[in-house]
Amino acid sequence: MATKTAVKKGSKSKIEKPATAILLIHCPDQQGIVAAITDFLHKNSGNIIDIQQHVDHLDQRFFMRVEWETDNFLIPKDKIDEYFGTLIGNHFKMEWRLHLSDQKPRMAIFVSKMSHCFYDILQRVMSNEWEVEVPLIISNHENLKYIADRFEIPFHVIPITKATKAEQEAKEIELLKSHNIDFAVLARYMQILSDDFVNHFPNQIINIHHSFLPAFKGAKPYHAAYQRGVKIIGATSHFVTADLDEGPIIAQGVRKVSHRDRIKDLIRMGKDLEKMVLSEAIYAQLQHRVLPYQNRTVVF
Amino acid sequence: MATKTAVKKGSKSKIEKPATAILLIHCPDQQGIVAAITDFLHKNSGNIIDIQQHVDHLDQRFFMRVEWETDNFLIPKDKIDEYFGTLIGNHFKMEWRLHLSDQKPRMAIFVSKMSHCFYDILQRVMSNEWEVEVPLIISNHENLKYIADRFEIPFHVIPITKATKAEQEAKEIELLKSHNIDFAVLARYMQILSDDFVNHFPNQIINIHHSFLPAFKGAKPYHAAYQRGVKIIGATSHFVTADLDEGPIIAQGVRKVSHRDRIKDLIRMGKDLEKMVLSEAIYAQLQHRVLPYQNRTVVF
Amino acid sequence: MATKTAVKKGSKSKIEKPATAILLIHCPDQQGIVAAITDFLHKNSGNIIDIQQHVDHLDQRFFMRVEWETDNFLIPKDKIDEYFGTLIGNHFKMEWRLHLSDQKPRMAIFVSKMSHCFYDILQRVMSNEWEVEVPLIISNHENLKYIADRFEIPFHVIPITKATKAEQEAKEIELLKSHNIDFAVLARYMQILSDDFVNHFPNQIINIHHSFLPAFKGAKPYHAAYQRGVKIIGATSHFVTADLDEGPIIAQGVRKVSHRDRIKDLIRMGKDLEKMVLSEAIYAQLQHRVLPYQNRTVVF
Amino acid sequence: MATKTAVKKGSKSKIEKPATAILLIHCPDQQGIVAAITDFLHKNSGNIIDIQQHVDHLDQRFFMRVEWETDNFLIPKDKIDEYFGTLIGNHFKMEWRLHLSDQKPRMAIFVSKMSHCFYDILQRVMSNEWEVEVPLIISNHENLKYIADRFEIPFHVIPITKATKAEQEAKEIELLKSHNIDFAVLARYMQILSDDFVNHFPNQIINIHHSFLPAFKGAKPYHAAYQRGVKIIGATSHFVTADLDEGPIIAQGVRKVSHRDRIKDLIRMGKDLEKMVLSEAIYAQLQHRVLPYQNRTVVF
Repeated sequence: MATKTAVKKGSKSKIEKPATAILLIHCPDQQGIVAAITDFLHKNSGNIIDIQQHVDHLDQRFFMRVEWETDNFLIPKDKIDEYFGTLIGNHFKMEWRLHLSDQKPRMAIFVSKMSHCFYDILQRVMSNEWEVEVPLIISNHENLKYIADRFEIPFHVIPITKATKAEQEAKEIELLKSHNIDFAVLARYMQILSDDFVNHFPNQIINIHHSFLPAFKGAKPYHAAYQRGVKIIGATSHFVTADLDEGPIIAQGVRKVSHRDRIKDLIRMGKDLEKMVLSEAIYAQLQHRVLPYQNRTVVF
Repeated sequence: MATKTAVKKGSKSKIEKPATAILLIHCPDQQGIVAAITDFLHKNSGNIIDIQQHVDHLDQRFFMRVEWETDNFLIPKDKIDEYFGTLIGNHFKMEWRLHLSDQKPRMAIFVSKMSHCFYDILQRVMSNEWEVEVPLIISNHENLKYIADRFEIPFHVIPITKATKAEQEAKEIELLKSHNIDFAVLARYMQILSDDFVNHFPNQIINIHHSFLPAFKGAKPYHAAYQRGVKIIGATSHFVTADLDEGPIIAQGVRKVSHRDRIKDLIRMGKDLEKMVLSEAIYAQLQHRVLPYQNRTVVF
Repeated sequence: MATKTAVKKGSKSKIEKPATAILLIHCPDQQGIVAAITDFLHKNSGNIIDIQQHVDHLDQRFFMRVEWETDNFLIPKDKIDEYFGTLIGNHFKMEWRLHLSDQKPRMAIFVSKMSHCFYDILQRVMSNEWEVEVPLIISNHENLKYIADRFEIPFHVIPITKATKAEQEAKEIELLKSHNIDFAVLARYMQILSDDFVNHFPNQIINIHHSFLPAFKGAKPYHAAYQRGVKIIGATSHFVTADLDEGPIIAQGVRKVSHRDRIKDLIRMGKDLEKMVLSEAIYAQLQHRVLPYQNRTVVF
Repeated sequence: MATKTAVKKGSKSKIEKPATAILLIHCPDQQGIVAAITDFLHKNSGNIIDIQQHVDHLDQRFFMRVEWETDNFLIPKDKIDEYFGTLIGNHFKMEWRLHLSDQKPRMAIFVSKMSHCFYDILQRVMSNEWEVEVPLIISNHENLKYIADRFEIPFHVIPITKATKAEQEAKEIELLKSHNIDFAVLARYMQILSDDFVNHFPNQIINIHHSFLPAFKGAKPYHAAYQRGVKIIGATSHFVTADLDEGPIIAQGVRKVSHRDRIKDLIRMGKDLEKMVLSEAIYAQLQHRVLPYQNRTVVF
């Protein structure tokens, strides 16, 4: 997570609702943080509508999510980030992100050939279950283009081979940056992103892995699960880092299986887990409730 | 929940740990509550270690749980309740409860003939999984006395018949009052308490019902579940009110069943649910995380 | 379930796979049933690949599902039903259904305005997760026609008013019959079917209700769940009978909720339950694993 | 699992119920097995009350559990094993176990210092939830002796050091053999058994490991789970083999956790999982529903 990356300006569209601001904060734990923040908001006529806090006792680190109404807030929206930094954030050595409710998050989707997560996401977007913009979809295959066409979302086919990977990823980075993407979702995208790609989007890429990590990392987890004879299968949504399947976990789901379930049944049932878990992670991200720190997340 | 019932003085034993105070509050929602409370604690050198808040949008009611360290707190422990009421609580029309971490809660257990919840609770008490005093056990039957004897906890056999109910309940109320009980647990106690009894202990009696309420209220829920052909059974822990099985729900648990499970299997599997769900509710109560309001609970 | 309703002939398309036959049977429990059936299959060179049996001890009723390979079976496919009845079924007073794996089930979908179950079903159909024909979709509103158009499935808009109900349902019955439908799915179809309609399709209409039945029958179950303060919400898929929300349950699912979840959150999370539970029920039906009897089901 | 290890004769006590026999079978998959077995039982007047079968398609192996009433069975109980072998088992190259319902299984319990699984098991034994004999308990510590004393079950304290391990294990093997133990349960027994010990009791030792295997093998899994930031914790019951935490899995359970749960919370909540999962595995074993084969199990 970048420090002090307040909301980017740009082409974001407006949404109806009482306008609020959300601060996501973490810093070394110390006395007086809660009082300082609530005092700052209260003195400037910001009505707090939700406040959550957490202390990680292993890292002695303080985490907070606070949301307040901005309609009567005395500090103008485009100055909140600066004022908060000067008056509170820098003093407590905080890292923070500010989100304004009247700006929809912008999400890119990466897919390959499997459609189950893709449809599930698009249905939520199209039915307004989620408040989000999807300016583009990227795929290394043509297969699902027809679905994107039905939904009238730009679909960029960018095939990847060993030889072309660096060059093609550069195109993808350019596309994501030029579309002001807040985060990207790998909806069963069957390519491993390079470290360089990942470093451009720290804690901004959400993946779904088809096992309950850390079990069955890497390829063919359902086959491995069957071989091991487990009685439970799972799926894990996590931020992508340079270490494969090792990034901070956002959400996990599981379901019971039995000896009666063949590998193809695990794959079939696993698809449902993948849909549900990935969408749970995306929804938390859209609500600005996810705070990654080192290798773990706080999901308020 | 009684208004302003701060911790009762008496024979409560001490427990080791950094001393804290916990306030459980609810009041009509309005601006400035969070700031007022955090300011009150901060100004008096109370280090907040946990704060959680909730607004019920149907009732427009505000709920909070806040815990702070009392070692350097400028207000003496036995004055906190008074000061808080004078400076904050009365102004905001709050109802609140204050708990001090150095006083162990005192819990009575009611049983009849079934031992599964009873053993489960006693194992947690005896192995110090829970910090709680159990000064007495009450039963309408002799059957489980031998277990209480093994654990050396006073076991009062108080048989109930239609004719003796009022008189016997009076004895029970007297026992609970004289032992300074904070709350009572009905661990599959097979008697319906009279309204009078319940009114003596508002939101202080925790029951376990063997169905996922509101389905299958009343007697023989597993038989009814089998008859209905449900694919899920459950258990519900709730505060006892004058309306049978209608009190505020604290915790619920379920598990899948199939056509292969006979009524006796539902009963057997249900016992595990009952144990788990009742203990989950008791643990939340012991942590002072349960705030009943009207017919619902906030479980922070 | 109609007695002895063997597979209908007609325009069913072929599917690739080792050809099998499936018998679903129930009858009064008695000695020798399993031996009689396995002997019948074995003597006629039918290799049994799956056999499951169940006895309901309340009803003293025997249930069985048996699947065998038909390639070397000595009885021709179109004679199996007759021979089985003559040699086994009638003797044991059985009711049975015969399914041949080379004939895809034909499923109609009913929808109104909500798209979540609809998309979920269509994605499974389109990606060949399920082997099923969907010859038509029926709706009382125009709203979701554009989705059916994208998937190129005939979409019949049949509005229903109190005055036109009988007449419009007659049209629907005619449509279902003329398309040789095996069963129909109500994917959040917001109309109550008349008894007459239901009687045309006994145990052939699958509904999804948005609560864990028998709790919260009827309209607005999520509102009722919130009011009651439950800590678990659910969804139930069942066969439609003349009694509203009282038909045999095929599948149920639940998830934990907390005081933090508003009614709109219950509705949002409930949609996922509805998708999963309805699809679980449809899949079991497509696998010929569901045997309703009176008010319950055996799901092998 | 030893081939053809029919029920041991000896001091087993009788239990009330319609007498049945249970056969657990596995063999290479081939045609005619089901028919051969059902024919054998039917011809000898054995009324089948439950039959379940499974084919593992990776191993091409056939599994079956069949239970029939023995009251009118023409083959005497003490000859069933021999006759079945001669007429069916040897022909199909089967491995099988025969269990008679009138002989209670005999189970040893191993414990160290933690009491949660121990109490949970004893409560089920004492309340007759399970039909089982517990002739002895073995521990490497004195700590839980007082509990066994309360329940009046012989408790053998056999301390283990590196130097004494071989000698002490020899004592334990002798104890288990002389008590005609059918299987042993490691109820959080904190010693790794030697390969030699394990080889004396193939698929007769049931362990509970406090993670969802294969994740977090070995020591301190809850600490590892916290460090990894998982959102789900689990427990796994499995047969003990020479490879640590690698034996065939019988049952697994999980529960959701969040950032709010510290390591001590994971340990506390994990204890409940351990109790439930271990007892689920023991119950399946007592019902003769568990068929280990190589590294997996069929749990009918």
